[in-house]
Amino acid sequence: MLKFELHKTHGHARRGTLTLNHGTVETPVFMPVGTYGTVKGVLPRSLEEMGAQIILGNTFHLWMRPGLDVIGKFGGLHRFEGWSKPMLTDSGGFQVWSLGEMRKISEEGVKFASPVNGDKLFLTPEVSMQIQTVLNSDIVMQFDECTPYEVKGHLTTEAEARKSMELSLRWAKRSQAEFARLENPNALFGIVQGGMFENLRQESLDALVAMDLPGYAVGGVSVGEPKDEMLRIMAHTPHRLPAHKPRYLMGVGTPEDLVEGVSQGVDMFDCVMPTRNARNGHLFTRFGDLKVRNARHRDSEAPVDETCTCYTCKNFSRAYLHHLDRCGEMLGPMLASIHNLHYYVNLMREVRQALDEDRFDSWRVQFHADRARGV
Amino acid sequence: MLKFELHKTHGHARRGTLTLNHGTVETPVFMPVGTYGTVKGVLPRSLEEMGAQIILGNTFHLWMRPGLDVIGKFGGLHRFEGWSKPMLTDSGGFQVWSLGEMRKISEEGVKFASPVNGDKLFLTPEVSMQIQTVLNSDIVMQFDECTPYEVKGHLTTEAEARKSMELSLRWAKRSQAEFARLENPNALFGIVQGGMFENLRQESLDALVAMDLPGYAVGGVSVGEPKDEMLRIMAHTPHRLPAHKPRYLMGVGTPEDLVEGVSQGVDMFDCVMPTRNARNGHLFTRFGDLKVRNARHRDSEAPVDETCTCYTCKNFSRAYLHHLDRCGEMLGPMLASIHNLHYYVNLMREVRQALDEDRFDSWRVQFHADRARGV
Repeated sequence: MLKFELHKTHGHARRGTLTLNHGTVETPVFMPVGTYGTVKGVLPRSLEEMGAQIILGNTFHLWMRPGLDVIGKFGGLHRFEGWSKPMLTDSGGFQVWSLGEMRKISEEGVKFASPVNGDKLFLTPEVSMQIQTVLNSDIVMQFDECTPYEVKGHLTTEAEARKSMELSLRWAKRSQAEFARLENPNALFGIVQGGMFENLRQESLDALVAMDLPGYAVGGVSVGEPKDEMLRIMAHTPHRLPAHKPRYLMGVGTPEDLVEGVSQGVDMFDCVMPTRNARNGHLFTRFGDLKVRNARHRDSEAPVDETCTCYTCKNFSRAYLHHLDRCGEMLGPMLASIHNLHYYVNLMREVRQALDEDRFDSWRVQFHADRARGV
Repeated sequence: MLKFELHKTHGHARRGTLTLNHGTVETPVFMPVGTYGTVKGVLPRSLEEMGAQIILGNTFHLWMRPGLDVIGKFGGLHRFEGWSKPMLTDSGGFQVWSLGEMRKISEEGVKFASPVNGDKLFLTPEVSMQIQTVLNSDIVMQFDECTPYEVKGHLTTEAEARKSMELSLRWAKRSQAEFARLENPNALFGIVQGGMFENLRQESLDALVAMDLPGYAVGGVSVGEPKDEMLRIMAHTPHRLPAHKPRYLMGVGTPEDLVEGVSQGVDMFDCVMPTRNARNGHLFTRFGDLKVRNARHRDSEAPVDETCTCYTCKNFSRAYLHHLDRCGEMLGPMLASIHNLHYYVNLMREVRQALDEDRFDSWRVQFHADRARGV
């Protein structure tokens, strides 16, 4: 089940509500990434408290560990990981693709050896749908091939990108057929590919739209391309997708990228950046980024971000976070992850409010000015 | 400031209330250990929610990192680490003693090289009091020398234990004098030493009691001695301490040890066992201990402990904890630490309730029967 109501538009930017089997999601939205059935270092209750509305799970990783028999016994990922709100799972395509020379791609699917125990495995559109049906995620992603930007210095050519995009389209159709056969009660999203070529993006988009899927993603960005290439595709594709369906930009990105994405008509984002950077002491704030490891924070009584209302900023100082980082204490990444995820979730909350109040343009100017100010 | 009200006794066991500068503590009590200004892997809010009343800080470690200038700027450890309830700090004596051959003990104090940056440092009773005054802990421990049970296979002789105990007594007097000179508004505890020799324990106790300190600890147990040796000292010393003052058994121990300690008249306990074991997947439950790494938990839908009301047991299964452990996910130790600390804190809550209701004996029989049942 998926229902999408569009409340308001401002240029390409949109304000909507997405209704899924496990609840509603106000858009634009940022979705924290929970690879192995856990958003790294964060209690589910902390996610709820910061206002996370929907989180991700990774099909490939969960297939490896704990395995489908275990998650199946729990009736899906929600009960297994203690998260009752909506959830989105990727298709596993990106992860098997990331295995590089350890996998072999054919028309049928992707053969690879399990990185956990070496078992020979075969991931196909059908298998991906079967796994995601067991996971019972609210949003299921089609199985696709991610077109690389470059491989060992060789830029992907238009012919290569076309071949890859067309394979993903055929896999989209097989995904859709299997999803229907399984009578999966959730919502299947198609993924627009086409590399850095607008004409291919348009072909991919047209073919997927003809399939009348309940939502669409833009894939194959944030895969190593220069920023201006990413911005070019972000400017091309999202707003051409059907207006009455949700649009998801996969794996993007910095706070600035998210705001740009909203401007270009994107409704949904995910990225590991807030949690990964947190574990390296890199904190996002309204006034730019802060490296908590920096010696200048050693005795700072200030919170990470004075304007932030997260648990970390309300209770702890930069000096304390600096100390925890220096001592290698777990609480350091824990508090930093809470802050960074809160920053991302709250950024989208501010975007929604600005859209609701018809002041997105002025909000965006202020956002960039604040971020450039420096912390 | 320290006030201790004794509400009830049952044999040697006691039920009391301890009032300190940062609040009151119902005894018997377990105190989670926060070595570097953080109870490893646990948010302070989780500690409050599970009912932790008082936590520990380690003088030696905090002196090294972040250093006194930083904690001094925050007016003490409470604000620095975001904990508003009572706090106890050790003297640093045990940690410098643990440095082994890297330190040199004299009448004056202990010379050693900082394990963090190699600086030559000198810890004395006076310096320990000065540090703990900056930390502003509610309970300050005297500087002492921990008498080892054995050194490289050589059991400590009575003569050696006497020499060490007498040094600790002289350091107790210097601690008391410096504590007074500093006008520290908190409470100084003496530490009974004497190794495994009852006569020395009695001498140490008598001399310390003559100093009229507001509370007393039993040190030098749980330092590698066989269990029956520890039980012998636990049976000897605590109940001989002044009845109207709090008694603290340092660094002990298993759940069974705590219950035995209560029976012998101990009011306060600390131990790293709940958090350290949690990080190794060793969980304490009413019905014995559980190794979450064990393959038999792979698909278990049961909580760690059906009778437990902690956040972990209310929301997650053994299968999920097994999965997190297997994937090396931070959430594993986080959830296990919450559970184990809750177990210890709640164990003392049950003890207090049993004492309040004059049924400690029957409670204790049931406790041992339950623990022996196996999980």
